[in-house]
Parts: sequence; structure tokens; C-alpha cells
Amino acid sequence: MTELRGKFIVFDGGEGCGKSTQAKMLETRLQQHGVDVLNIRDPGTTRIGEMIRAILLNPDHLEMAMRCEMLLYMAARAQMMKETIQPALDAGRLVISDRFVSSTLSYQLGGDGLTSGDIRAVAEVTIAGRWPDLTLILDMPVAVSRSRVQAKYEHRNDTLFGKDVSRVVKDRIEQRSVEYHEQVRDNYLKQVQADPSRYQLIAADRQVQEVHEDIWAAVTSGK
Amino acid sequence: MTELRGKFIVFDGGEGCGKSTQAKMLETRLQQHGVDVLNIRDPGTTRIGEMIRAILLNPDHLEMAMRCEMLLYMAARAQMMKETIQPALDAGRLVISDRFVSSTLSYQLGGDGLTSGDIRAVAEVTIAGRWPDLTLILDMPVAVSRSRVQAKYEHRNDTLFGKDVSRVVKDRIEQRSVEYHEQVRDNYLKQVQADPSRYQLIAADRQVQEVHEDIWAAVTSGK
Repeated sequence: MTELRGKFIVFDGGEGCGKSTQAKMLETRLQQHGVDVLNIRDPGTTRIGEMIRAILLNPDHLEMAMRCEMLLYMAARAQMMKETIQPALDAGRLVISDRFVSSTLSYQLGGDGLTSGDIRAVAEVTIAGRWPDLTLILDMPVAVSRSRVQAKYEHRNDTLFGKDVSRVVKDRIEQRSVEYHEQVRDNYLKQVQADPSRYQLIAADRQVQEVHEDIWAAVTSGK
Repeated sequence: MTELRGKFIVFDGGEGCGKSTQAKMLETRLQQHGVDVLNIRDPGTTRIGEMIRAILLNPDHLEMAMRCEMLLYMAARAQMMKETIQPALDAGRLVISDRFVSSTLSYQLGGDGLTSGDIRAVAEVTIAGRWPDLTLILDMPVAVSRSRVQAKYEHRNDTLFGKDVSRVVKDRIEQRSVEYHEQVRDNYLKQVQADPSRYQLIAADRQVQEVHEDIWAAVTSGK
């Protein structure tokens, strides 16, 4: 598995699609094969990133402009890149990130007139040109993923910047309409079509073990 | 003075160069001529911008990556553009901003390898292409501006996100070395040289009224 040293793999997709479960399963299996893995989430991970995340997800910030939202995600990502991801890659570790630039290319695209070219131009500067080697898009119908998010809320145990937000309101992004989330899903599918050498679509509305096997195949195929 | 309707004017330069004093003097004189003026500061002004400003200036955040710092300034600016500046310009008001993209082109340039092209590419997306019509660079030797900042600290009465930070430590940017602030000054001078049609250099180490007259001439010359 030496070909996996210094690789940068992203899990992405809509809320409730199983990204963090699958990231954990991949991490465990890679570790069993002796691979040194760093498993992180975006936005967040760093102290400064968590502060930015708190501004982003605060359900009260309804006036936030889409360009501001996009730049805040990028700011948290720039900090994580410098402080966490790049040093890990340089040390030969495999980095798994739960969300990355691909999220911004789905969630903020079109808002306030933002184009894919706009977001890519900002991302190029944010990550100093170090794009992920493989982005796994976990895909399922929006109705399924939203019912999963709903279930999560009934058993939620989450923190935002040290504060317990369990059983509080949905965050600012989760509150958006079904139509918005349908557009987000479509944006993910278009990213896969546009760059098949760096993206892999994974049908996620199946048993977790089946989904995991597809992910394992994609990661170890040397794609 | 109808030619000043919907104009966007920026005051910029190092700490202690007199930007806010001069902005206020210009505002007052324009109002005496019947011009409807909006006078704001960057970063800040909006609720979300003030939260971002608190992260940026916190003297404890020494691990902040330069690309993160740059993107946070841009995020605050994007919010201010959408919420405050663009609506004011659309309504025919003259907008004066204390700092703007020109600050980022001086303070963050070169940090972590950031080029002028990188910063301009991000700024273009941040402000949706609405660059200031005139940027006034207030220039003075660093030794003079730093002694003014020092004096300000002895009589400080400032707030960051609602908290009183008078007579506390210098903020994260002010703490940086003399060499850093010399480079910042040089970066401002280079911006003026590179784009004389949109920039005006103002010698600021003089009596405030003399400085004001030069500013008044630049603003009313139709530049």
C-alpha cells in the first residue's frame, strides 16, 4: 500500500449520506494494512477553523451573503491546509477529509451569481494548488438523505465551538429548501461527470458494507 | 457635485496615518455640498463582518495562516459589499471606506507565497468586479506612523465585537515588526505606481488641513 503514502482523499455528498461513517470504515481498514491515516472534517479541525464554523452554521445568520459564506469556508480550509493537511501529506500520511472544495462547488454554486470558475479561482489560491487526488461523491435521493438528517436530530449530540447544540435547531445550511438540496445533489453529479479522473461516484443508498467495498475498490485501484 | 453620485472612494495606508480623521473631514465637507455620504470601515461594519474582525485581530491567534487571514478579510468585505456598499452605490450615495482590497494587497502580499495576482483573483470574486473608483493612499514614514499608534494606545477607547479592548495589548497586525510595516508601505507605493488612474498618493505627514485640501482636490478633480 506504499502507493497510498501522501494521498489526499475527500468524502463528499449531501447531508445524511453517510460520509463520516464511511470515512471511519476506510480509515480503520487502511490502518489494518499499515497505512498512517489522518481523518479530519472541513470546515473545522483547527482552532481558528472551528471559530469560523461557528459563524457559518449559526442558524441566526440569515443575512449572510453567498460570497461571504463561500469565502468563510475557504478561510477555514486555508488554515486547515497549512496547519494540518499539508504537513501530514509531507510526512507521507494519507489524509481523509469529510468535505472539501467539492462541497463549495455544490452548496454555494449559483448563489449571488457565483460561477464554478469563480469558486475554482478562489480555491486555487486557498489550497495553493494542492487539489485532492480522489474525491468520492456519496450519492442518494434527497428524500432519503433528508429523512436521515431528521433522524439524526432526534438523537443529536453535537458541539459548535465548544457549545452543546444537541436537540437545538437545524444549522443554517440544513434549514434550506428541498429544491436547494436537489440542486446541490445535481451539482455533485456534474462535478463527477466533468472530472472522472479525480472523482468517483458512489451509490450510497445501500447497506454500509456494500458502500464501503465500492469505496475500498476505488481507493485501492490507484485511481 | 452630481458627478460624485454613486462613487466609491477608499482611504488606505499604514496604521496611524490619519485615515479615519481624513475620511471624517471629507464626509463633512461633501455633506456641506449636499452629497449623500456613507462612511464605513473595513473589515467590520456588518454584524457578520464584526465577528470576522474579532477572529482576525485577536492577538492570541498567532498560528493564523496568511491565506486564511487574506480570505477572512475578503469574507468580511463580501458581506459589506452585498449588505452595505452596493445598495448605497445603487441609491446614488457616495461611499467612503476606511481600508479595502488595497489593504490586503499591502498587508498579506508575499505571506505564504501569496502573489498580487492571487489576491486580485480572490478580490474580483469577493466584490463581484465592483472595484473602487478612487483609492487615496495616505503615506508617511513608518517611524512616524508607529509613534502615532503608540500614542493611540495610551488613550485607546476601542471595542471589538462589543468588548472593550481599550488599553489591552496591540492587535495581531499591529504587533508585527518594523520591517513588516516597511514592506507594507512599499506595497502601497507600488500599487499607486501600477494604477495611477485609480490611485492617488497623499503625503500624510503634514498638518491635517493641508492633507485634507489635497484629498479634496483629488476627489473633486473627477479622477
